[in-house]
Amino acid sequence: MTALPQVVRRSPDRAVETYAEGKPYDLFFLDTAGVRLVGRKTEASYPGPDRDGRPAERLKCTLIEPHMLLGVVEREQVAEDHVAVFHRPLGEEERTALFAAATADPMTDLYYPYAQLGHRVRETDTGGWEVTDESARELDHAEEVLRDYVPDRLAELGFRGGVAYDAACSTGAFLHAVGRRFPGTRTIGQDLSPDMVARARTRLDEAHCGDSIRPAIPEGSADLVVCRHLNAFVVGTDQAHDLLAAAASRCRDGGHVVLLGHTPILISSQWCEMTGLTPVQRSGATPSGHALFQCYVLRKG
Amino acid sequence: MTALPQVVRRSPDRAVETYAEGKPYDLFFLDTAGVRLVGRKTEASYPGPDRDGRPAERLKCTLIEPHMLLGVVEREQVAEDHVAVFHRPLGEEERTALFAAATADPMTDLYYPYAQLGHRVRETDTGGWEVTDESARELDHAEEVLRDYVPDRLAELGFRGGVAYDAACSTGAFLHAVGRRFPGTRTIGQDLSPDMVARARTRLDEAHCGDSIRPAIPEGSADLVVCRHLNAFVVGTDQAHDLLAAAASRCRDGGHVVLLGHTPILISSQWCEMTGLTPVQRSGATPSGHALFQCYVLRKG
Repeated sequence: MTALPQVVRRSPDRAVETYAEGKPYDLFFLDTAGVRLVGRKTEASYPGPDRDGRPAERLKCTLIEPHMLLGVVEREQVAEDHVAVFHRPLGEEERTALFAAATADPMTDLYYPYAQLGHRVRETDTGGWEVTDESARELDHAEEVLRDYVPDRLAELGFRGGVAYDAACSTGAFLHAVGRRFPGTRTIGQDLSPDMVARARTRLDEAHCGDSIRPAIPEGSADLVVCRHLNAFVVGTDQAHDLLAAAASRCRDGGHVVLLGHTPILISSQWCEMTGLTPVQRSGATPSGHALFQCYVLRKG
Repeated sequence: MTALPQVVRRSPDRAVETYAEGKPYDLFFLDTAGVRLVGRKTEASYPGPDRDGRPAERLKCTLIEPHMLLGVVEREQVAEDHVAVFHRPLGEEERTALFAAATADPMTDLYYPYAQLGHRVRETDTGGWEVTDESARELDHAEEVLRDYVPDRLAELGFRGGVAYDAACSTGAFLHAVGRRFPGTRTIGQDLSPDMVARARTRLDEAHCGDSIRPAIPEGSADLVVCRHLNAFVVGTDQAHDLLAAAASRCRDGGHVVLLGHTPILISSQWCEMTGLTPVQRSGATPSGHALFQCYVLRKG
């Protein structure tokens, strides 16, 4: 199953996580260069070495770094109370080389197959967040890497502005960054939380309060649809699929749909493909290539 | 992840099974010829086309046939209440060719990664089976393919007889078949059920009543240890690992340990390797190659 004969001859090891601790969420798979790797998410350098003069924090966040890679997957076992992923361990140099291959290929599939095992409170169970100035700042900070990356990447992929809709816009900072990069773009946000909508109104052209299962804009009216809410700890898996369908219906044919977030995306790129959304990319990398993160860019039709 | 470019270009599909129905048990993976396949177990032709003059039944059993193969796996998603395996579907000819490659390679890894999701009654919860003549005949019948296969295969792999211990010997028919193939072998069975032990005594040199966590024979005293009980619906995953350690301790260095059964084996071959049991084979095929089944042959030390 791998092009790394020296790794296959090594003694196997296993990564184990129990449901009780909700930890299968930390196990990620990375398909790159023809091999399937397993890793365990730990703290990353955030926002990372690309920011001169700003000290990097150590955060468990959306970023994956090479030291988190464990080995080449052979098989897994999803048991009554735990997951075990059997693998052949990687050495330091192999980690570095495979990670470089992963960051060089935007179709690298980074995914969390066990994100929803175990018991976690979903944020929307409370009917939307209450927001303080501090929590809003934290949210915006946690999304900084994505906010820096996506607008330029969309330009590379041919997006030229138009109507941009964010189905769960939060403080509006993300969509605002898109608007700044593409002048003349009409930015339309929607959020479940009145507090969030009040904040987003100061930054966006429109901000609507409501559940994103009922999008605030007409079908086929957006050139860009941003989904930052189809993620673990935000919604459930079935709900994520329903919300994707609702959001994608608002995108025009030929337009772009973007899936991202702090926590694992609960939709596979294959599901997107099955529903008429062609993956153009699945993961992004920081400018220096120090870290990798999930970021689906999909073309409708 | 695959050497089948025409398959990768196909539209993806997904195999979904819910925990409520206990069906993830039916999903199997097959690693062969450098590709990872997913399939769904349905009824097979049993004992199969190799038995002249005996009509084959259609049974959901230990046998995997080519028509059960679905596609080349891309990724999976283990969600709150279901498993989805995304794959690129195989055509008829590809199924046939990949299945032929799988049956030709005894190291083909056939496994059931989700065997223990969902809720199933374990047979040992009742403290051992009550056995009727009819249920004993059914048990023996369901194991016919394995009983025919294993002794000859052990001979090919260098086993020459000696002390053969079956940690959960049931009616004793399996170990009896081993004894017949290797004259002079001392056959020693153990079972939790007094009914089973009474039946086994008529066929084996010794049959002991007791939990196989406390094997009836001394450490390192067996040339062959047979484990037919480390399987789904018989024990739990943790219990299976404890019972393997107990049974394997009775095998001498250089001896053989065999894992098999009607239902999925709850031990990975990688775990065996991690605990000093080197896999010599992982799956077997019927003489005509019409079907494949799990059958680990391990060499101790």
